[in-house]
Amino acid sequence: MSTILNEVLHANRNYSADFDKADLPMPPGRRFTILTCMDARLDPAKYAGLSEGDAHVIRNAGGRATEDAIRSLVISYKLLGTKEWFVIHHTDCGMETFNNEIMTDLLSKSLKTASVDSSGWHDCCEGPGSKEGKYINWLTIKDQAESVTEDVVRIKSHPLVPSDIPVYGYIYDVKSGRLIEVPAATAAGRVA
Amino acid sequence: MSTILNEVLHANRNYSADFDKADLPMPPGRRFTILTCMDARLDPAKYAGLSEGDAHVIRNAGGRATEDAIRSLVISYKLLGTKEWFVIHHTDCGMETFNNEIMTDLLSKSLKTASVDSSGWHDCCEGPGSKEGKYINWLTIKDQAESVTEDVVRIKSHPLVPSDIPVYGYIYDVKSGRLIEVPAATAAGRVA
Repeated sequence: MSTILNEVLHANRNYSADFDKADLPMPPGRRFTILTCMDARLDPAKYAGLSEGDAHVIRNAGGRATEDAIRSLVISYKLLGTKEWFVIHHTDCGMETFNNEIMTDLLSKSLKTASVDSSGWHDCCEGPGSKEGKYINWLTIKDQAESVTEDVVRIKSHPLVPSDIPVYGYIYDVKSGRLIEVPAATAAGRVA
Repeated sequence: MSTILNEVLHANRNYSADFDKADLPMPPGRRFTILTCMDARLDPAKYAGLSEGDAHVIRNAGGRATEDAIRSLVISYKLLGTKEWFVIHHTDCGMETFNNEIMTDLLSKSLKTASVDSSGWHDCCEGPGSKEGKYINWLTIKDQAESVTEDVVRIKSHPLVPSDIPVYGYIYDVKSGRLIEVPAATAAGRVA
């Protein structure tokens, strides 16, 4: 068994040994949802003060308002009753280090993990690669305040999102652990 | 200011007050990724024993292997060096309570939160609704072991996923906090 699998199962045995959350209902108790990045340095339960049962958490590369995030948000509200949503991107995000062309080019040469230095991304090795990278929009980020605002606007203007849901836009600072408001996003996410 | 926003910012001030994670690097230290459901009862950091900096966490409604999850997984491996992935669905998932037809019908009548009882889902009120629900595949779940296995198979067979990444399939039991292996998924996720 892999070391990681062994460690995860060991941690899970400890967690479940004194488990006292069996009676939590399915709908989030505090009725809100966070959309944020998959980045390993972010723990939304810790940075936003969540206990099990409190809130939905949606995460993807960048914390972007993709079709899949919209699918999840609509289910979160329509079927499970959340009433406020957060979009939280973060400083030093990997999504700022490349663009669609760089990713497509890297994947076409090799699927293996690439390395990065001051001159950019470099593939470790030749092949096997795939040209399929061009069929994915990688949704990279140039400016965090802009990406948060764009994503809040996209969510607020979606035809399946009721107009009375406030959407708050924040950037998580990985150096300080602080949530920093993006005023343009919060303004766009306001209930009219 | 909303009560929830106030509480989240208060919790964040406490978290950042004694923040000691400023030097964590961008790539996940333990080099693995978890794809799991947005459900409020699930805290992957707790149920799998993660600290900040350890692992990527991708979450959506159901923990499904959507195009967006694949986008995130490929970035996780190709640019940030993760080497093992988990797909973790869970018992008592909201995605088992409806299907595409039910959701499309509910949204066409009203965007507001619906209620559920033993006879199924009911809309609270008439309009405003939207017919846009039919353009989204809601990716509902009939059987958790099947959905985990399907998603592991989909990930393993994606042209941008290298063959040497093991993918483990588990179900999180919300009544016990335990991770339960899905043997068919783990078999499908094995490195050949």
